[in-house]
Amino acid sequence: MSASEGEPTLSASVVGASGFTGGELLRLLAGHPDFEIAQATSRSKANKTIGHVHPNLRGLDLRFSSPEDLESVDVLFAATPHGVSMEHIDAFQDAADTVIDLSADFRLDSEAQYDAWYDGHSRPELLADAEYALPELNRENLAGADLIASGGCNATATILGLLPLFENDVLSGDEQIVVDVKVGSSEGGAGGGEASSHPERSGVVRPYAPTGHRHEAEIEQFLGVDVSFTVHAVEMIRGASATIHVFPEEPVSKGDLWGAYRGSYEEEPFVRMVAGGGGVYRYPEPKAVAGSNYAEVGFELDPGNKRVVVFSAIDNMMKGSAGQAVHAANIALGLEETAGLDFAGMHPVGSP
Amino acid sequence: MSASEGEPTLSASVVGASGFTGGELLRLLAGHPDFEIAQATSRSKANKTIGHVHPNLRGLDLRFSSPEDLESVDVLFAATPHGVSMEHIDAFQDAADTVIDLSADFRLDSEAQYDAWYDGHSRPELLADAEYALPELNRENLAGADLIASGGCNATATILGLLPLFENDVLSGDEQIVVDVKVGSSEGGAGGGEASSHPERSGVVRPYAPTGHRHEAEIEQFLGVDVSFTVHAVEMIRGASATIHVFPEEPVSKGDLWGAYRGSYEEEPFVRMVAGGGGVYRYPEPKAVAGSNYAEVGFELDPGNKRVVVFSAIDNMMKGSAGQAVHAANIALGLEETAGLDFAGMHPVGSP
Amino acid sequence: MSASEGEPTLSASVVGASGFTGGELLRLLAGHPDFEIAQATSRSKANKTIGHVHPNLRGLDLRFSSPEDLESVDVLFAATPHGVSMEHIDAFQDAADTVIDLSADFRLDSEAQYDAWYDGHSRPELLADAEYALPELNRENLAGADLIASGGCNATATILGLLPLFENDVLSGDEQIVVDVKVGSSEGGAGGGEASSHPERSGVVRPYAPTGHRHEAEIEQFLGVDVSFTVHAVEMIRGASATIHVFPEEPVSKGDLWGAYRGSYEEEPFVRMVAGGGGVYRYPEPKAVAGSNYAEVGFELDPGNKRVVVFSAIDNMMKGSAGQAVHAANIALGLEETAGLDFAGMHPVGSP
Amino acid sequence: MSASEGEPTLSASVVGASGFTGGELLRLLAGHPDFEIAQATSRSKANKTIGHVHPNLRGLDLRFSSPEDLESVDVLFAATPHGVSMEHIDAFQDAADTVIDLSADFRLDSEAQYDAWYDGHSRPELLADAEYALPELNRENLAGADLIASGGCNATATILGLLPLFENDVLSGDEQIVVDVKVGSSEGGAGGGEASSHPERSGVVRPYAPTGHRHEAEIEQFLGVDVSFTVHAVEMIRGASATIHVFPEEPVSKGDLWGAYRGSYEEEPFVRMVAGGGGVYRYPEPKAVAGSNYAEVGFELDPGNKRVVVFSAIDNMMKGSAGQAVHAANIALGLEETAGLDFAGMHPVGSP
Repeated sequence: MSASEGEPTLSASVVGASGFTGGELLRLLAGHPDFEIAQATSRSKANKTIGHVHPNLRGLDLRFSSPEDLESVDVLFAATPHGVSMEHIDAFQDAADTVIDLSADFRLDSEAQYDAWYDGHSRPELLADAEYALPELNRENLAGADLIASGGCNATATILGLLPLFENDVLSGDEQIVVDVKVGSSEGGAGGGEASSHPERSGVVRPYAPTGHRHEAEIEQFLGVDVSFTVHAVEMIRGASATIHVFPEEPVSKGDLWGAYRGSYEEEPFVRMVAGGGGVYRYPEPKAVAGSNYAEVGFELDPGNKRVVVFSAIDNMMKGSAGQAVHAANIALGLEETAGLDFAGMHPVGSP
Repeated sequence: MSASEGEPTLSASVVGASGFTGGELLRLLAGHPDFEIAQATSRSKANKTIGHVHPNLRGLDLRFSSPEDLESVDVLFAATPHGVSMEHIDAFQDAADTVIDLSADFRLDSEAQYDAWYDGHSRPELLADAEYALPELNRENLAGADLIASGGCNATATILGLLPLFENDVLSGDEQIVVDVKVGSSEGGAGGGEASSHPERSGVVRPYAPTGHRHEAEIEQFLGVDVSFTVHAVEMIRGASATIHVFPEEPVSKGDLWGAYRGSYEEEPFVRMVAGGGGVYRYPEPKAVAGSNYAEVGFELDPGNKRVVVFSAIDNMMKGSAGQAVHAANIALGLEETAGLDFAGMHPVGSP
Repeated sequence: MSASEGEPTLSASVVGASGFTGGELLRLLAGHPDFEIAQATSRSKANKTIGHVHPNLRGLDLRFSSPEDLESVDVLFAATPHGVSMEHIDAFQDAADTVIDLSADFRLDSEAQYDAWYDGHSRPELLADAEYALPELNRENLAGADLIASGGCNATATILGLLPLFENDVLSGDEQIVVDVKVGSSEGGAGGGEASSHPERSGVVRPYAPTGHRHEAEIEQFLGVDVSFTVHAVEMIRGASATIHVFPEEPVSKGDLWGAYRGSYEEEPFVRMVAGGGGVYRYPEPKAVAGSNYAEVGFELDPGNKRVVVFSAIDNMMKGSAGQAVHAANIALGLEETAGLDFAGMHPVGSP
Repeated sequence: MSASEGEPTLSASVVGASGFTGGELLRLLAGHPDFEIAQATSRSKANKTIGHVHPNLRGLDLRFSSPEDLESVDVLFAATPHGVSMEHIDAFQDAADTVIDLSADFRLDSEAQYDAWYDGHSRPELLADAEYALPELNRENLAGADLIASGGCNATATILGLLPLFENDVLSGDEQIVVDVKVGSSEGGAGGGEASSHPERSGVVRPYAPTGHRHEAEIEQFLGVDVSFTVHAVEMIRGASATIHVFPEEPVSKGDLWGAYRGSYEEEPFVRMVAGGGGVYRYPEPKAVAGSNYAEVGFELDPGNKRVVVFSAIDNMMKGSAGQAVHAANIALGLEETAGLDFAGMHPVGSP
């Protein structure tokens, strides 16, 4: 299979391309050296130009097509609402050997788990076969995978913050873990109701999921621990920032923590360690990664409370969705791992 | 002493009136039925009109005066930076029988506590005499008090969220308490450095005080417990929102919690209970109280994690500073408790 | 009729009270010394508390009632969408001797004018009788008026900016006039579609009505001139700011302009002149009047281009709607003109 | 000279690299196929990492160096404040055969013009030799140029909006032209004073340069006309949006206008025509181009007022500064014109 040079040699389609994550997939694929976009489907926007919906892509010479007529491609990205992919998975797999699903449909391992958090799965037999897309967690299983489930954005931020503490035995799994997440309005998707209208949504610090957010399921599945999870909507468009309060049983030093995080992430192309130092941006921040596939992870010690505070920041539509999906696709198809994901983000940028 | 009718009969001055909380004090005093503003001092803005700095008060026929020449008044509000009031407290008390200080100088009870969090107090003998302004915590000691310390905004939000749980024995004091606060940019005051510049500060979710925020001292002094306290800067101007994660040892029901909060706050004129229900605004939110002296307090149960999540939202410059100060002054001077504090807030409003 | 003292003596109802301007009317009436709220109607929210929709009014002990059963009151405010008042005007006038309509239904003088800008009026015979609410333009006709039409927000800002130039013969009416207006998202009302969703509406500078905005009709009716009118949506919730470029035929000095504006507005309680000077807020700004009934008006000279640039800023929901309506009601009913309208606005405040 | 393939073959330095446009230059050069960054100078940040100041570039292994020790490079970009480049131009030209200056120092053609708008030029003999960087205006003179002046952001937006009307004789130059510009806070640079602090700057519609903005000089120099120019600060970080009101003497149709704009821009890689159509984004908007080098240009007809309203939107730091500079460098050095400038922008994005 081709490395990232010369003309694109793989064809890719995006199903559900008029949504926000669908638009990000199109942006990434249009700039990807190895992919050519075959189809971008949207039931409601069929025949309109991509730029009609995604103004940043007004220069793209492509129109939405109907989801009924899927061409055969090398890879198909499904960016449809939860519950849609499981209904159309056969058509997706008929169209492409590699299917990357960005919904929650294939993230959990078992029907029992799915039923505990969602409402009945129509294709439970596929759950065990799907691979979770997050490379930092699951890289070794992605090469050659044919069904990949891109992680939930809040789960991704949380898992990236906690993973090194478990991988390096700072936490045993029995400790109290409080996760306080702040997310932007794009997490609600392109539809939006009254709560998403600009006058009502602007400037909020709004308890969005005080308890019981479904992304807890992914965290518990992959880390094997219960977390006390609360999500707030705050004033930004894109971004998910997890502040994780943990209480290790054994005393831990900053050096221990640096060791743990470096041990897990030193070789990771899309994880940046940010912990203290001077300047304005001393800890992970969504602003610093907006538009990019980078995650920032950092921490601070609170010895008086025997606490470690971990910060983890991503762009929910990139590392938390479309970027993670393309990253996984690159690995699955044997491409350069970072291909098409080199945008660094901007400084300064507003509500990211 | 007069109740709130007819012409103003009490004179009030604001020292440090060109700052943000100084401006809010002027707004409140200008609309207060019992107070007449005698002086608004500012070293840097002396002789300029109030409206030069506070554009909402362009209609006020008053100029800043020098802080050197304090007239004798009934009540003096000091809205100066930390450390200034302790240096000038004699002059303040010479000028007024009732002094309300909005800095941290007189919030803590003892020199030992002060030194643990701040840098040396020049008048420690006054610490024990000063009364903490928060009426919900300390109303019975405010009547007739001559030195009153308005609480810190983050401490105020946190104390209001936790107080009923201690007053009504939901918590014993031995439990883990995690407080995750989100604050607006006015908390940094009117000066502002590089981190407060609009391009750098806009749209952030920024760990502002990951650990060790000084308001912990007030919380621990008044509630007698240690809290794991983290403060984030988010995109708003005014507002402090505390999300408090607690883990009661005994199971607790929603009814128990309603009982506790109603027990503590039913008679409080400036605390609103908001917990669940439908609509867009289901929990406490800074937007809902911007510009007003109201606090909103609510909660949600997380039985799976044996957790209660408490939400507490205030306007940091009102209930968290200038409004709390005027409220305390009303009580200290025997006025109608709510006088001058009747603004309800607006809907909709942007970044509050 | 009572002056503004003691207990409220007049009853008022708000029809269409769940919308944004309806909510502002409720806020103003709840704090008004002479009015008691009788009914707040909303078809979709009937029986819900006011605070369910307007969180700033959670303390108000009142529920929405059905618009079918209007009680007899002293004054009825109609805050319904365009076209509704003309259908229900008989019921409104049966219920109240004084009706203040906040829609466009009764702003224009003739059926011909109405038809030129809107789609057919069902009660054209009432157009000539209705009085335009803007006191700076029409105070002498408001006392005792029984049908009053509150002006459009963009028209109000523009008229307030231009009026002194015509009243004081700086302009003759033959000159080129370019009006470039910037408005907040509340102008779109509480419903909102895709363009009003937070991700799409945030941070825009969006040509909202490049040409042909209906408020041109009011400007042309009251000032007797054509204006080149363009409206942009910008990032704020409340606020309308008109920048008006005019080219007087005769040279004009700053002194002439100050004379003109002072001549028109010196006695006006809700118009502030702001033109130059130092500090941060040198010209009219929506932030400076957010939540208040004040208009700010100012100007700058551009001698090289023989141009005067006029700036006019209001809160679209206050001076541009609910505040203007209450102001007109005060005059119509012989009350203190400023009663219930004394909120000064806040500093600082975010996207107002 | 190399086309855009394989390893970078040209060295580039950025002087003044800690400012906002300096940071954008670093971002673009780091992702440019033909350039390798040699030095990024900053007097105040020397020896700190690039990521210390520009958090999006935390992954870049580079530190600021002192501006005293310039290495010999192929191209030097100067992103220093106005007045600095003219003092150091000899050192810049000693270091590099091609110098691209992003300040106003070399934008104007003559000392007389410079003195009319700025304060005395120390190297006026160089003014006639410098080339203006905007390719749409001056492409034919950029190849091989050794001193290039990147245009002012507001001038760039305005020139791009007006140029086709002059090139295609829709305007003769005698007509009234009103330009109403809205800009983001990054235009004020990385320093920022009180007016740029977040609480004071957020949510404004603030007359920033009511008259007399220096970018008028560039517009008048290149288009040969006087414009009535007013600049407002609005709530965004990056972006400049010009609304241009023109009044052609001869009637003009939409077809004429499309013809004119297509005639000028059909072949331009970085100009997009956006005029009407459906959807949310019907006209040029800064949000649609944030982070990218694209300009969007569109228009609407107002036959009643014999007016054409032109809209032109750019990212002030990209097409209005760093992007324009790299584009010009590509042309000057014979590289692929679009090299390093392929980022499409994001959707959705907040205050851009």
